[in-house]
Amino acid sequence: MTKVTPRIQAGFMELLPGEQILFNKYLQIIKSTYEEFGFVPQDTPIVENADILFSEIGEDTKKEIYRFTKGGDDLGLRFDLTVPLARYVAMYYNQLTFPYRRYQIGKVYRGERPQKGRFREFYQADIDIIGNGSLSLTNDAEIPAVINRVFEKLNLGDFVIYINNRKILSGLVSSLGLSDKIDEVLRAIDKWEKVGQETVRLMLNEDLGMKAADVDKIIKFVKIAGSNKQILSTLKSLDIKNELFELGVKELKEVVEMAIDFGVPEKNLQIDLSIARGLSYYTGTVYETKLADDRIRGSVCGGGRFDNLADSYTNQRLPGVGVSIGLTRLFSQLVSSGMISVETSSVAKILVIPMDKISDFSLKVASLMRLAGVPVEVFTEDDKFRKKMNYANKTGVPFIAIIGENEEKLKKITLKDMKTGEQELVDVQTAIKMILK
Amino acid sequence: MTKVTPRIQAGFMELLPGEQILFNKYLQIIKSTYEEFGFVPQDTPIVENADILFSEIGEDTKKEIYRFTKGGDDLGLRFDLTVPLARYVAMYYNQLTFPYRRYQIGKVYRGERPQKGRFREFYQADIDIIGNGSLSLTNDAEIPAVINRVFEKLNLGDFVIYINNRKILSGLVSSLGLSDKIDEVLRAIDKWEKVGQETVRLMLNEDLGMKAADVDKIIKFVKIAGSNKQILSTLKSLDIKNELFELGVKELKEVVEMAIDFGVPEKNLQIDLSIARGLSYYTGTVYETKLADDRIRGSVCGGGRFDNLADSYTNQRLPGVGVSIGLTRLFSQLVSSGMISVETSSVAKILVIPMDKISDFSLKVASLMRLAGVPVEVFTEDDKFRKKMNYANKTGVPFIAIIGENEEKLKKITLKDMKTGEQELVDVQTAIKMILK
Repeated sequence: MTKVTPRIQAGFMELLPGEQILFNKYLQIIKSTYEEFGFVPQDTPIVENADILFSEIGEDTKKEIYRFTKGGDDLGLRFDLTVPLARYVAMYYNQLTFPYRRYQIGKVYRGERPQKGRFREFYQADIDIIGNGSLSLTNDAEIPAVINRVFEKLNLGDFVIYINNRKILSGLVSSLGLSDKIDEVLRAIDKWEKVGQETVRLMLNEDLGMKAADVDKIIKFVKIAGSNKQILSTLKSLDIKNELFELGVKELKEVVEMAIDFGVPEKNLQIDLSIARGLSYYTGTVYETKLADDRIRGSVCGGGRFDNLADSYTNQRLPGVGVSIGLTRLFSQLVSSGMISVETSSVAKILVIPMDKISDFSLKVASLMRLAGVPVEVFTEDDKFRKKMNYANKTGVPFIAIIGENEEKLKKITLKDMKTGEQELVDVQTAIKMILK
Repeated sequence: MTKVTPRIQAGFMELLPGEQILFNKYLQIIKSTYEEFGFVPQDTPIVENADILFSEIGEDTKKEIYRFTKGGDDLGLRFDLTVPLARYVAMYYNQLTFPYRRYQIGKVYRGERPQKGRFREFYQADIDIIGNGSLSLTNDAEIPAVINRVFEKLNLGDFVIYINNRKILSGLVSSLGLSDKIDEVLRAIDKWEKVGQETVRLMLNEDLGMKAADVDKIIKFVKIAGSNKQILSTLKSLDIKNELFELGVKELKEVVEMAIDFGVPEKNLQIDLSIARGLSYYTGTVYETKLADDRIRGSVCGGGRFDNLADSYTNQRLPGVGVSIGLTRLFSQLVSSGMISVETSSVAKILVIPMDKISDFSLKVASLMRLAGVPVEVFTEDDKFRKKMNYANKTGVPFIAIIGENEEKLKKITLKDMKTGEQELVDVQTAIKMILK
């Protein structure tokens, strides 16, 4: 029989058991933290109608969509979780309670040319709070509190949530008489970290045709540094007369102060006037989060405030604020940089190894342990003892219970701690206590 | 601006928050039970190369596949979790430890014509145990133990795991000199429940051209009833001289006896000689599970033993045994029949409602509760108190903490139990205890 070569598409992350266990641990931390803050789960289809997906995106992203027809319907795989959220909120508007606070953790698809660190299928872990008509600024302050708690729990070292408000930069650009160029200027500034200051200068000057003096002003502005208080006071002292600018500064000040009240440590929240976010639908607060460890490059979590989520699908005004963690990319960097590594390929805490055939007693031991909340695997194969031990070593299960003739007779097990190598003849209840300890 | 009508494809289940919370609860029970038995997680791409998907399926299923090209690649959405498992095991053969015991809970896609109770996107929750070269019969007995524990925990009333062995029916058909018709006969018998005895008789007699006497024999055989012991003894007494038949009976007896040892109550495991499973890749033990409650129609969980999982992709012999729970279909029936219903649309255990503006104290209360493991939502909008209470009522959150001027002063909260309506002025630690109780 001719064999089909077993393979997957480039850009699709697939993990071996040990890595998958680790990945799921991180995913679970994110999920439980989102729920700790009262976000409700959402699970939308991976397949959407193409006109839904295409309603609000640029030509570049359109090309990336996995698009197909089935039974005459024009369909595509979702490329983010925001479009499905917008479609969902518009669709179930009358059945939802607002503010609607939801999380969705799921796979999204972008058929880019594969390159290192880029995925075509990847997990996003999103939270958003959607208001009906209006949504208070308090929500903009709660988002950093959630993200702060997530990254504290993920335990990946120090991190900083960078925060800004798009109204400030937009107002500044307006005050220079360039209000028709706001989106382009912000998109250029968004590229700062990737391409560097001089390239941004060229983009503003040559591509957008801005005067050198204006470009200088913007670049100098974006580089304003200091503590949050210092930056806020510098912003005031600039005395820029522009309503949008002033509103932006006021909002930023309020949000930062409230976020601290929400429990975000000062050191984890930093105003950064260069944070612009490329997407023009952000209209106020914007966030990026970076790990201090420079092995993880770029932002691991970004988002912001938008004035109107679902205006492609409904006349209802639905403002919102949210962020997205790019889990697949983060995880892949954590593994490849060696920041985390596989500890075990076993979800069982103990492997029951019968010396000979599986006996009633072996199975009873397993059942009792499971009832006590211990995940148990029973070695089922009729192999030599050496092979059974080999399996235990390879999977990295923390404990094994060896059950032979003597153990059968005494109704005890030989419990072996695979890390220390110590073993002891104990009864099942004692073993359970030792494992759960 | 022209609006795109917010909608999804027929046959795609999408839930409102209360239902989604329920769905996730059931999914979580299945997941944790699978892990309790030491199955490791697997998460394969939803997109596979088309030749992988097409390697082992019939023309009917082929038509159902969502197939598309991207960058010249011929791709499709997975239609089950078994093909990806086979591809995965063949691909990572050298890196896996066998027996490889994995679970995968994920969405699969079948572009059928939509009809009631049929889904085009649905969750399967699969476990399989794959051996390297061989796999002991003990595994066939452990599978019912896992399923039994899952359905005990799902708490959907009585259920029965029906068990059979395809070797028995195959041997019987062979003994009638019809070994070339085994697959067709088993496929016909698999339809018994759906179409009834007389239609099966017609299929065997007219479609397959079997003699009336042989058809009678098979139909009489399939209807053999009684306790497991009685059926096994009847099977022996039939004295059918066929090696495959005898091996099947021996295996069935061993598996049933071991399953009882594994902790499956006698009443939950029933031999049923009509269980055939339509798919010809099953070669031994087969299972179907049914709920006693007749509002849930058909099998909620099926599977069996296969001799060689991945022979489309590798020369390695990889026998296995496993089952799949059709979670979306089950859940949808549970809801539509009224067997389960939404209790709350809130994952938070308590909603903090500030009477006026959100204060430091309100946020501190929320933080303290979260640290104690209580999921907390803070009401962020500057609405009238009536509207805030309305939100609490609509989401069904079990407790609220009202914090006004008096509470601020006393550093206490007014804790209201939304079920009983009782409220009390208490300190935060007392409130936490009351909520967690």
